[in-house]
Amino acid sequence: MTGARGFPAAEYRGRVARAQAQMSESGLDALLLTTEPDIRYFTGFLTRFWESPTRPWFLVLPAGGDPVAVIPGIGAALMAETWISDIRTWASPDLSDDGVSLLAASLADMVSEGGRIGVPFGPETHLRMPLDAWRVLAELLGDRDLTGDAGILRRLRMVKSPAEIAKIQAACDVAGRAFDRVPEIACAGIPLSEVFRRFQMLCLDEGADWVSYLAGGAGPGGYLDVIRPATDAPLAVGDLLMLDTGAVLDGYFCDFDRNFSIGPPAAETEDAHARLIEATAAGFNAARPGVTAADLFHAMDSVLTDGEAPEGAGRLGHGLGMQLTEWPSLMPADKTVLEAGMVLTLEPGLSLSGGRIMVHEENIVITETGAEWLTRPSPPEIVCLEGRA
Amino acid sequence: MTGARGFPAAEYRGRVARAQAQMSESGLDALLLTTEPDIRYFTGFLTRFWESPTRPWFLVLPAGGDPVAVIPGIGAALMAETWISDIRTWASPDLSDDGVSLLAASLADMVSEGGRIGVPFGPETHLRMPLDAWRVLAELLGDRDLTGDAGILRRLRMVKSPAEIAKIQAACDVAGRAFDRVPEIACAGIPLSEVFRRFQMLCLDEGADWVSYLAGGAGPGGYLDVIRPATDAPLAVGDLLMLDTGAVLDGYFCDFDRNFSIGPPAAETEDAHARLIEATAAGFNAARPGVTAADLFHAMDSVLTDGEAPEGAGRLGHGLGMQLTEWPSLMPADKTVLEAGMVLTLEPGLSLSGGRIMVHEENIVITETGAEWLTRPSPPEIVCLEGRA
Repeated sequence: MTGARGFPAAEYRGRVARAQAQMSESGLDALLLTTEPDIRYFTGFLTRFWESPTRPWFLVLPAGGDPVAVIPGIGAALMAETWISDIRTWASPDLSDDGVSLLAASLADMVSEGGRIGVPFGPETHLRMPLDAWRVLAELLGDRDLTGDAGILRRLRMVKSPAEIAKIQAACDVAGRAFDRVPEIACAGIPLSEVFRRFQMLCLDEGADWVSYLAGGAGPGGYLDVIRPATDAPLAVGDLLMLDTGAVLDGYFCDFDRNFSIGPPAAETEDAHARLIEATAAGFNAARPGVTAADLFHAMDSVLTDGEAPEGAGRLGHGLGMQLTEWPSLMPADKTVLEAGMVLTLEPGLSLSGGRIMVHEENIVITETGAEWLTRPSPPEIVCLEGRA
Repeated sequence: MTGARGFPAAEYRGRVARAQAQMSESGLDALLLTTEPDIRYFTGFLTRFWESPTRPWFLVLPAGGDPVAVIPGIGAALMAETWISDIRTWASPDLSDDGVSLLAASLADMVSEGGRIGVPFGPETHLRMPLDAWRVLAELLGDRDLTGDAGILRRLRMVKSPAEIAKIQAACDVAGRAFDRVPEIACAGIPLSEVFRRFQMLCLDEGADWVSYLAGGAGPGGYLDVIRPATDAPLAVGDLLMLDTGAVLDGYFCDFDRNFSIGPPAAETEDAHARLIEATAAGFNAARPGVTAADLFHAMDSVLTDGEAPEGAGRLGHGLGMQLTEWPSLMPADKTVLEAGMVLTLEPGLSLSGGRIMVHEENIVITETGAEWLTRPSPPEIVCLEGRA
């Protein structure tokens, strides 16, 4: 890949300092983190081994000083290559005590009795450890309180550093080159499942480390939703094909889609595509520090025919970074104020005839004065693929 | 792919009936499921959209009758294509009530006051919903008790049906063909990151729907662990290269690895590889219904030089199926009695000089009388790749 992998230690130290400042304001004596992105955010620990649900992993960020990793022994060598120096391991799996007593003892080292330990409890979070173990942990901690993280992880991770933005840009570039090559792999007669496999190969060929997400759909004049895997049905003339990918480069995602017409597009298809591009541009033009996520929704929504998000999606875009989707949501209820460094998807959709939909998606970053495209924005004209088998 | 996608409804009805019989024995009035594999196990709902952490998804299995899906509207169309008919949706994301009141009302429909709702709480599980929402749910449920699932999901999912085994076999066949083609993509001078990208392309080219896992390592005479992503360092003569993949076909994983010597192997490398193959065979020969996971550990362990699992791994294999790793663990403490239909990895490892290791892995299924290979087992001789750049 272009550019060095990972980040210098200074990047992580800055994140720790910002977290500790917010912990101080919120009266938190430590943060306890259990998920892949939260642990990687402070450590740089990058592995696909999270795919295995067997072992819990923990990171403790005390009110002062460096983070402490409390992890299965199988991760010790890789964690030792990060900037983290205090690495405490146990022999995992352990059917009777899978790290819980070591974690409790570590927390007791760093947090006095009566202290408060913040854990991400809010929207878009979960606790990646068994609930039985969580209950044992609470007992072992006595009168130390396991409480919410006061939104600290959300606030920190929503605003990307220039180094993070460069990685997301690189992931967008990879997928952009893959989308340019779709005419090599898709035409009438090719099974959708084959198109999905070949598109992932194009992403890898163009430099993706891996392809964590590919969904989409194809059908006459539109598709039914944007989350399904491929069937083995062949593409047919008149189909609208959509591919939506989250390709990953050095741990950072892109998330955007492209629509294709198999053979010449119907007028409805042409018009819908052009209107989606217009809505995306409206979102882009509205994007600047100080406006809200809801403002971007309304800017796009005002261009869409039916004045509502496509049934089901519930929003017209979202945050993006270490995960395919992150806070905020571009929807009326989300009043998150945009700041420079936030990376967002703009994802307007339209309902078409026959209960079908079309969705378009681009990625942008908020700058000091407005916004910049991270994707190369699609023109209004939909790309037409061969109608011959 | 070969063979139909998904399963007939009878497969799911059998799973439901077995679950309900165990619920009755355990005095549970419903199961509440929140994770991708648990929900897919009873519904067949297959999507990569779980990559987005934004929305919670729920399935309720009552003591009698069919499961009820309580899901974000974005999933309604796809869920409607499964055998599930009772699908309740809400407009998600909802920042104030993301499905919790709908879930609580649905549970109240099915579970009387004072009733017991089982949730997977044990090893290798987690709750995929925000803890704030979990606490609200508990309040809304009043004196209905959210308790453990008595190990029901673990017991059910550990024993695979013939239809599930066929899908895992197909995933193993895909990765086996990709491993056969490694000489096309790897030799001295090629960056390891390039090998990782090209190997994933081979898996896709051979028919994988996606490649959820690829880890491995390369280094002089061995590698440091088995979980790391690739660096951009080029392969060199004398390196031992290991690729360990979880390729997915129709939602089922394989999980096995292959080792390669860059140029002619050193005597230590040859000997270690042959001993790992011998250990794997010892595990295979010991595998039959009635023996324990621990017995398979000891059968393999008796062949390994140092009499212990490689530092850190903690076990010499594990279950496999809808996830890369599942229960049980092949280790002394795991006394799970093997049954026909269990799919396992055999994964012995050896410590080598210089703090390096070598790990070998195959996949098997327990039969009525013994075991069968799902992978085409590796011969004792390590495959040698070109030492010329």
